[in-house]
Amino acid sequence: MTSKYTSLKRECYEANMQLNALGLVVHTFGNVSALDRKNAVFAIKPSGVAYSDLKPKDIVIVDYDNTIIEGKMRPSSDTKTHSYLYKNWETIGGIAHTHATYSVAWAQAQKDIPILGTTHADHLTVDIPCAPPMKDVLIKGNYEHNTGAQILECFKNRQLSHTEVEMILIGSHGPFAWGKDATKAVYNSKVLEVIAQMAFITLQINPDAQKLKDSLIKKHYERKHGKNAYYGQ
Amino acid sequence: MTSKYTSLKRECYEANMQLNALGLVVHTFGNVSALDRKNAVFAIKPSGVAYSDLKPKDIVIVDYDNTIIEGKMRPSSDTKTHSYLYKNWETIGGIAHTHATYSVAWAQAQKDIPILGTTHADHLTVDIPCAPPMKDVLIKGNYEHNTGAQILECFKNRQLSHTEVEMILIGSHGPFAWGKDATKAVYNSKVLEVIAQMAFITLQINPDAQKLKDSLIKKHYERKHGKNAYYGQ
Amino acid sequence: MTSKYTSLKRECYEANMQLNALGLVVHTFGNVSALDRKNAVFAIKPSGVAYSDLKPKDIVIVDYDNTIIEGKMRPSSDTKTHSYLYKNWETIGGIAHTHATYSVAWAQAQKDIPILGTTHADHLTVDIPCAPPMKDVLIKGNYEHNTGAQILECFKNRQLSHTEVEMILIGSHGPFAWGKDATKAVYNSKVLEVIAQMAFITLQINPDAQKLKDSLIKKHYERKHGKNAYYGQ
Amino acid sequence: MTSKYTSLKRECYEANMQLNALGLVVHTFGNVSALDRKNAVFAIKPSGVAYSDLKPKDIVIVDYDNTIIEGKMRPSSDTKTHSYLYKNWETIGGIAHTHATYSVAWAQAQKDIPILGTTHADHLTVDIPCAPPMKDVLIKGNYEHNTGAQILECFKNRQLSHTEVEMILIGSHGPFAWGKDATKAVYNSKVLEVIAQMAFITLQINPDAQKLKDSLIKKHYERKHGKNAYYGQ
Repeated sequence: MTSKYTSLKRECYEANMQLNALGLVVHTFGNVSALDRKNAVFAIKPSGVAYSDLKPKDIVIVDYDNTIIEGKMRPSSDTKTHSYLYKNWETIGGIAHTHATYSVAWAQAQKDIPILGTTHADHLTVDIPCAPPMKDVLIKGNYEHNTGAQILECFKNRQLSHTEVEMILIGSHGPFAWGKDATKAVYNSKVLEVIAQMAFITLQINPDAQKLKDSLIKKHYERKHGKNAYYGQ
Repeated sequence: MTSKYTSLKRECYEANMQLNALGLVVHTFGNVSALDRKNAVFAIKPSGVAYSDLKPKDIVIVDYDNTIIEGKMRPSSDTKTHSYLYKNWETIGGIAHTHATYSVAWAQAQKDIPILGTTHADHLTVDIPCAPPMKDVLIKGNYEHNTGAQILECFKNRQLSHTEVEMILIGSHGPFAWGKDATKAVYNSKVLEVIAQMAFITLQINPDAQKLKDSLIKKHYERKHGKNAYYGQ
Repeated sequence: MTSKYTSLKRECYEANMQLNALGLVVHTFGNVSALDRKNAVFAIKPSGVAYSDLKPKDIVIVDYDNTIIEGKMRPSSDTKTHSYLYKNWETIGGIAHTHATYSVAWAQAQKDIPILGTTHADHLTVDIPCAPPMKDVLIKGNYEHNTGAQILECFKNRQLSHTEVEMILIGSHGPFAWGKDATKAVYNSKVLEVIAQMAFITLQINPDAQKLKDSLIKKHYERKHGKNAYYGQ
Repeated sequence: MTSKYTSLKRECYEANMQLNALGLVVHTFGNVSALDRKNAVFAIKPSGVAYSDLKPKDIVIVDYDNTIIEGKMRPSSDTKTHSYLYKNWETIGGIAHTHATYSVAWAQAQKDIPILGTTHADHLTVDIPCAPPMKDVLIKGNYEHNTGAQILECFKNRQLSHTEVEMILIGSHGPFAWGKDATKAVYNSKVLEVIAQMAFITLQINPDAQKLKDSLIKKHYERKHGKNAYYGQ
């Protein structure tokens, strides 16, 4: 039987496998989703399936209310976080959640990752935010839905743009990243892990390492993302 | 000549090879066993054989009294630890012992691994226990048997359940993990190593990192292991 | 259609792929160029192309004034740094820029890498220099051109020879390395990363680790690079 | 043309390639030799050849006076260290020198690696010695010959047996390991690197980590190497 979502499932499947190939997850950890905004559905990894066992046909299609549209498996337990973000952020098309080692370590340390160099500034102009752990009442409630709300609240409080900052750490938990599609979300997850590791080592070498100065932040960010950008094709 | 334990040996062999593929051992280090509780025997890695040389037919079948039932090779020198645990814990079906780097480092540091994040709470609700080194008289006695006893004593003293906490560090030595079968024991060994590395880096970033709060511990553990669990298939 | 630069492009392509294979870059990060001094042109990686997508025909041929001589893609955004160095240093034939983790961490820490052992002295006799971040006016100006000037100024201020010291860290940014050809530039980039990691761990073990003494520096450097060298074929 | 040393060269070649496969060297770094004591010659890696280029026929046959018996290439620049050890230690049949990261870091830190756990005691009962850097007059003299002498002097001063302790760090330089044959020397080089990494992390977790107690040292060493050993086949 054919499905109108075959290519969406394939995109989602490949992004999930990339998560594994990039060393950002082990076992069944983590999940990536891919959005079809026209049809108001997204494809997401099934819950608790090992990457070594995952097949394109296992990918679950869900709508913004978390109703399963297609698929025989239960979707990721984090599905409500994904749907919350898709509903609220109209420009994104993919979301990735990993358990990457250095990203999780910064989240567990409950520290923003300071902007210490141009590798960071190539991707964003501010510290990578670490949202504080959720209030108990929200944890005991609709937890995964509230995780989405927690992300939005952090961005609102800090006056961050989700199109400029495509990643966050949830305190005590781990990273979420997003982008125009699932591939970009995975790309950003790897960028975050690389920056997290570099920042860790930098501060071990020099605990007084200074933040990158404004002129370098601006130069590196603008040459990749500014209106006169000259990076890329 | 056929054996009634061919599939048990195969399961044990594959679990041992997985230990190596997951980067938890080098050379001949470590060992995994797989239990056949009906026949009151278990399959275990032969002693001192390199993973690159290991064959399914090399796997040794041993009973609870450590008598070789089948196999031409000497079983793992840690066999008595395995049999002790199988005899005393009726619900487990596999045991793994590794020399994974970060797990061993915490064992050598003689420190419990504190519960610092949700990756930890996805698997257990307490610090990963580090049993104190054994008394000299027990080391000089039936050492590997006493290692099993040491594990049980640590669980008794701390009032831990071996069905909820499926891993331990032996101070100055290294990790043991177990589960319903050999595959799960290896799975848990990798989980332990990942948590050990994350906790190490977390405390390097922030020596004052706080333990995960109770509501998050409960939420993450219950959604995977509680009676209303919604993780997995 | 054939090109007179086919073999130059191939050399540049392979050096770029080696950068990736040696674990010195992820995604589209980094770039290597290869010089044809006779024709006063060099081949360089196109900007923003992932290593997994890169083809020999994508390599761009550029002259010393950064004019594209051959190729349909935009060259690396760091092209002007390469041309500046080729114009000013007549003995070099290849340049590599990476985002290797430990090299970048030392650059972000804004610290020279001290000469702590013979692995370092096998390649150079002094600390690996970390140039200070550029002045704001230069960053806002012709940035990549000025990065080349920054490297030369650092070498001049410290009275270093670019034929003896084939690597540098740019503070807050990352490493550049060079050599007689592109292969050697990549070789040096890996040497730098290995030395950077070893120095980091050494100082974690012993914050008071002493610099290598002069007699050992001289012995190891001379046996590889002196007039009576007896290392190599 | 056939050689009486074809199998010796093959053994040496494979041990060198294993050094690379185990992640203990990059580029052309390091070297392994294999002894034919009956003929008083040994096979050794040629100097400065990359592992990716190395062929069995490139291996050089040298006698105890460092005269080339067979082979068209120059032998390793460390050849005199190997010959010195073979001449003085009649029981060894293979030697390996690596630039493995953690081993070199301890050597650069000029610290013995303390015996902190049973992985260490499975292989030796004492701290892994770090010989002090050589005197200037010896460095300026017959350096590689004197490196062999430095190793023997360290073992003599500390009353160590080279059949019990099959590895050493040379301060500011790096590790040497040996054994009954080249394969065992490479095996020991990997053991040393694993122990070096574990000890580093242990002391980062707990700077006051205690040395392994005597009863555990004895138990683990004896069960593998004692007269009533029951480890292995």
